[in-house]
Amino acid sequence: MVAMQALPHPERDEIRIEAVLHALADPVRLRIVRELALRPDGVSCGLMDLGISASTLTHHVRTLREAGVVFVTPRGTSRISSLRREDLDALYPGLLNGVLAAPR
Amino acid sequence: MVAMQALPHPERDEIRIEAVLHALADPVRLRIVRELALRPDGVSCGLMDLGISASTLTHHVRTLREAGVVFVTPRGTSRISSLRREDLDALYPGLLNGVLAAPR
Repeated sequence: MVAMQALPHPERDEIRIEAVLHALADPVRLRIVRELALRPDGVSCGLMDLGISASTLTHHVRTLREAGVVFVTPRGTSRISSLRREDLDALYPGLLNGVLAAPR
Repeated sequence: MVAMQALPHPERDEIRIEAVLHALADPVRLRIVRELALRPDGVSCGLMDLGISASTLTHHVRTLREAGVVFVTPRGTSRISSLRREDLDALYPGLLNGVLAAPR
């Protein structure tokens, strides 16, 4: 059993609005964010049933991580993704709730 | 003097979150949106001093219009752009304020 390595994340003050908006402006990534919003403790990406391949999911989660939208933290042999709600709410109050409230 | 033609806009119920986020996820378009947020009565694009060419500005305003972020309405020989704040606040409460609050 090989433990997963830690992945780099932007600090809160390195997060940029354009990158966050770009990361959110994709239907699959938006579904990932909606899913994570329901799971404040985070979830292993493999357990999200989004009907896409593992490599596609990995790509999208990486885009979200690099933009500062999600944390991806190793836990044993898994990686747990969680929404950076505290950081996003502090930087852009209302944005995340507005996006999550979107009927479409 | 030839009056400007009216341009097509999505109705409120045709606006899609992905298109709005994509339209906002660009530094120039974000500056346009910030500028328009300060001018509730709208402004002729030619009067916005963004240091970009007229054709580039037209391109970005079109992206914003087609996404449902701005209205562009003819007034004589000009086109007046204004933010669709009421529509966006109704569809995605908090999103626009969160974006406008962004320090970066």
